[in-house]
Amino acid sequence: MATRSTIMDTNSFRPEMAAALDPQTRRLTEERNVLGPAYRLFYRNPVHLVRGQGARLWDADGVEYLDVYNNVASVGHANPRVVDAMSRQASALNTHTRYLHENILNYAEDILSTMPEEIDRIMFQCTGSEANDLAVRVAQAYTGGEGVIVTAEAYHGNSALTSKLSPALGTAQELGLTMRMIPTPDTYRLVIDGKPASECTAEKFGGWMAGEVRKAVADMERHGIRFAALLADSIFSSDGVYPDPVGYLKPVIDTVHELGGVWIADEVQPGFTRTGDAFWGFERQGIVPDIVTSGKPMANGLPTSLMAARHEVLEPFAGTIPYFNTFGGNPVCMAAAQATLDVMRDDDTMGNAKRVGAIFKQAVTDLMAEHPCIGDVRGAGLYIGCEIVKPGTKDPDQPTALDILETLRDHHVLTSVCGRFGNILKLRPPLVFTEDDVDMFISAFTATLEELGC
Amino acid sequence: MATRSTIMDTNSFRPEMAAALDPQTRRLTEERNVLGPAYRLFYRNPVHLVRGQGARLWDADGVEYLDVYNNVASVGHANPRVVDAMSRQASALNTHTRYLHENILNYAEDILSTMPEEIDRIMFQCTGSEANDLAVRVAQAYTGGEGVIVTAEAYHGNSALTSKLSPALGTAQELGLTMRMIPTPDTYRLVIDGKPASECTAEKFGGWMAGEVRKAVADMERHGIRFAALLADSIFSSDGVYPDPVGYLKPVIDTVHELGGVWIADEVQPGFTRTGDAFWGFERQGIVPDIVTSGKPMANGLPTSLMAARHEVLEPFAGTIPYFNTFGGNPVCMAAAQATLDVMRDDDTMGNAKRVGAIFKQAVTDLMAEHPCIGDVRGAGLYIGCEIVKPGTKDPDQPTALDILETLRDHHVLTSVCGRFGNILKLRPPLVFTEDDVDMFISAFTATLEELGC
Repeated sequence: MATRSTIMDTNSFRPEMAAALDPQTRRLTEERNVLGPAYRLFYRNPVHLVRGQGARLWDADGVEYLDVYNNVASVGHANPRVVDAMSRQASALNTHTRYLHENILNYAEDILSTMPEEIDRIMFQCTGSEANDLAVRVAQAYTGGEGVIVTAEAYHGNSALTSKLSPALGTAQELGLTMRMIPTPDTYRLVIDGKPASECTAEKFGGWMAGEVRKAVADMERHGIRFAALLADSIFSSDGVYPDPVGYLKPVIDTVHELGGVWIADEVQPGFTRTGDAFWGFERQGIVPDIVTSGKPMANGLPTSLMAARHEVLEPFAGTIPYFNTFGGNPVCMAAAQATLDVMRDDDTMGNAKRVGAIFKQAVTDLMAEHPCIGDVRGAGLYIGCEIVKPGTKDPDQPTALDILETLRDHHVLTSVCGRFGNILKLRPPLVFTEDDVDMFISAFTATLEELGC
Repeated sequence: MATRSTIMDTNSFRPEMAAALDPQTRRLTEERNVLGPAYRLFYRNPVHLVRGQGARLWDADGVEYLDVYNNVASVGHANPRVVDAMSRQASALNTHTRYLHENILNYAEDILSTMPEEIDRIMFQCTGSEANDLAVRVAQAYTGGEGVIVTAEAYHGNSALTSKLSPALGTAQELGLTMRMIPTPDTYRLVIDGKPASECTAEKFGGWMAGEVRKAVADMERHGIRFAALLADSIFSSDGVYPDPVGYLKPVIDTVHELGGVWIADEVQPGFTRTGDAFWGFERQGIVPDIVTSGKPMANGLPTSLMAARHEVLEPFAGTIPYFNTFGGNPVCMAAAQATLDVMRDDDTMGNAKRVGAIFKQAVTDLMAEHPCIGDVRGAGLYIGCEIVKPGTKDPDQPTALDILETLRDHHVLTSVCGRFGNILKLRPPLVFTEDDVDMFISAFTATLEELGC
C-alpha cells in the first residue's frame, strides 16, 4: 500500500515546474507568491481560465476545456438566470438580516420545502465551513457533549473548529482532542465478516459502520468525553466516493441517536440534486438528519451557505447565543440562491444527473476491460469516483492517477483526485453535463489511458 | 451604573411587539420564525427596505430613510460601478483559486500597496469572522502560544474560535480558556493616576493600556498559557468607539512585541478610509501590525474578506497547513473588491470621511449644550460614538438611548447602539455621506431630543 498522501504529492503545481511554462503562465504563477504558500494551484502546467459557459471553460488563449470537476458552478458556468437575478438585486439593494427582506424568507420557505418536515429552521452563512462550524456548536449545545465523529479522510471546513474535524488536511493539521475517526466506508477494499463489502447488503454494511460508531463513542466515554454528533456526508466524497449500497446509513443514524448524538448531514457535496436520485444525499439514503449543512452548489458561485435543523435541536444554541452573519442571507446571495434553485427545478438537474450520470458511469466502467489500471468505478448521479490501481491488485497507484490527470489536462479535460491515497479520479462536473460531454470525456480518457499504456 | 446589556434589552424587535405592526410588517416578522431565535431584527417597528442609493434607503411603501449605520455599503448602496464590475465578471467566469486568474493577483497587489511594506502576503476569505479565525491560527502557529488578548467588549466574529474571543456576545457565550480580557480604553470614564483619561497624552494613556496587557500576559503565564496575540481594532468600535488620543496604541504594540506576541489589527471597522485620516486604522495610530484582517466594507456587500500578514509571520502556518477557501478570492468577489477600491480612490472617500466627519462630529457636539443627555461625542471620520447618559452624570442611560433610536427611526433615520451598556449611539454611515446628509441627521436628531425632552 502507498503511504498517506501529503499536500506536496497531489494535484499541485510546484515552483520547480516553472521553467517549463510559457512566459505568461510563468509570470502569473510567480505573482501568486504574494498569496503565500498555503494556496495550491492545480496542474504541473496551471490553467488560466477567463470564460465559462455550461460545462465548458476557455483559457486566455481561447482554448476550450471540458469541466469534469467543478460543482460550485452547479447550474453551469455563468448561468445567465443566476447572473441576472444577482445583478438585478444588487442594483436595487444589498443589506443584512436585521432589516426585513422578502428574499431570505421566500428562499427559506422554498429550500425547506425540499427537506423532511422535521427540518423546520434554517440559518444562512457564507461558506460551507461556516455552516459546519455553526452546526457543530448547535449539536454541542443540544446534546451537552463535545465529542464529534468523522470518517478517516473527511474534510468539513477551514475554520479552526472544522479543520480539527478534517483529517483530509493531512498530518500537519492538529485534530481535536474530543473528536474521533471511524474508518472510511471503503466498499472496494473492506471485508466484513469474511465477505467483500461490495457484496454486503445495506444492513450488513451499515451494521459494520454502526459498530465503528459504537467503538468510537465507547472510546470517547473512557476519556470523559460526551458524544455530540456524527458529522458526515452521505457519499463520503473526500474519503473517495462511497454512495452504495443505498440505505447503509440507516443503521448508522439509528445508532447515533441511540447513543444520544445527532447526525449532521454535510450536504456540500451530495446535496442540490447531485446524486440524481434525490434532491439531498440523506434523502437518497432514506434518513432524516438532525442538522443539514450545505454551501458550494447553492448559489452557483456566490458565497452562500445554509444550516438547517429541527427546531428542538436548534433551540438550546439559538435561544441563548446571538449569532449574526453580516453577509449571510443578504438579498443578493438569496437572489442568486433562489435563481439557482429555480434553474434546478425548471431544467430538472436531478433528472439530468440521473440520466447522464448513469451513462457516464457505465461508459467509464466499460473501459475497465481494456484498461486494468481502473480498479473500481463508483458513484451516484454526476459524482463518480474512479480508482486507479496497480493492475491485478487493489493497490492504489497515485503516480498513474496524477499522470492521467495531467494528460487529461493536455486533452483539455479538467478533473482532480480524492481519497486517502490520492488515486481516485473525482469526476464531478456541473449538473448541466450532457451526453455529448460524456462522449468528449470518454474519448479524451481513452486516448489518455492509451498514451499512458495503462 | 447599569448592568451588563443583554441580547434582549438592546435595539431589537420582540414578538410581543407584533400587535402594534401593520399587517404586512407583521406577516414578515412572523415568517421569520423559520430562521430561529438567533436572528435579531432592529427596531420595535422593523424596517422593510427594498431599495438603496448612496446613503439613502427606501422601504416597501416608498418612504425614504437616511442611513447613518451601514458600513458594508461603504461606497454607497447599489453603487453602479461595483454592481457593473460584479455583473460583468459573473457573466464571464466565476471560479476558484486553484486555477490562475488575474483578478485576485491584481487586487492583491493593489490592496497590499495601501499597507506598510512589511505586510507582504495576503489571503482571501468570505467574512470577517473567517479572516479573524485564520489570523488567530496564524498567530498561534508563529508564536507557538495559544493566549489571545481582547478588550472587554470586543466582537471579532461568529465562528467557534472567534465567538470565544468576543465578550460582546454576552454572558451566555462561553469564552476561551486561553483568552484574557483587558478593560475597554474608555477615555470618557477612566481615571489614570488621578487624571481623567481624556486629558492624558497618548503616551500616558497608552502606557496604562500597555500595563493592562502586561497584567493579562502575567496571568496567562501563571496558568501555563503562552501569549500569542493581541486582537484589537484601533478604534474599539464594539467597546464604544475610542479612537483618541492618536498614537496611544504605540506603547501597547511595543509591549505586545516585547512579550513575544503579535498584533492582529482587526480592520473590519476602522479600515478602508473610514477614519478619514488614513486608509487603515492602524496607519492612523502610527503602528505597523503583524497581521491585518478586514471584511465588511471591502466589496460593498459581496461576502469578501482578507487576512494580510508579514511573510515570516504567515510562514509557519501556511507552509505546513493546507488552507483552501472555495469562494475566497473568486473572480467575482475580487472584481467587486477592486471596483470598491477604485471608487474609494476616484471619489476620495478618505477626504470625504475627514471633511464630512469633522462637520458631523462638530454638529453633534454642538447639541450637548442644549441636551444634557449627550455626555460625550467621540470619533474619527465617519465613525462617531455619542454617549447617552443621565444628565449631570456619566451614568449610561440605555433606555433613553433606545428611545432616541426608535424616535430617529420614526423620523426616517437609521442607526444603532454599541458599548458595554448599550447606551452609545453608533453613527457610522456609508462613506459617501454628504453635508446635506449631516444636516438631515442633525435636524431629525434635534427634533428627537426635543420630543423626548432630553
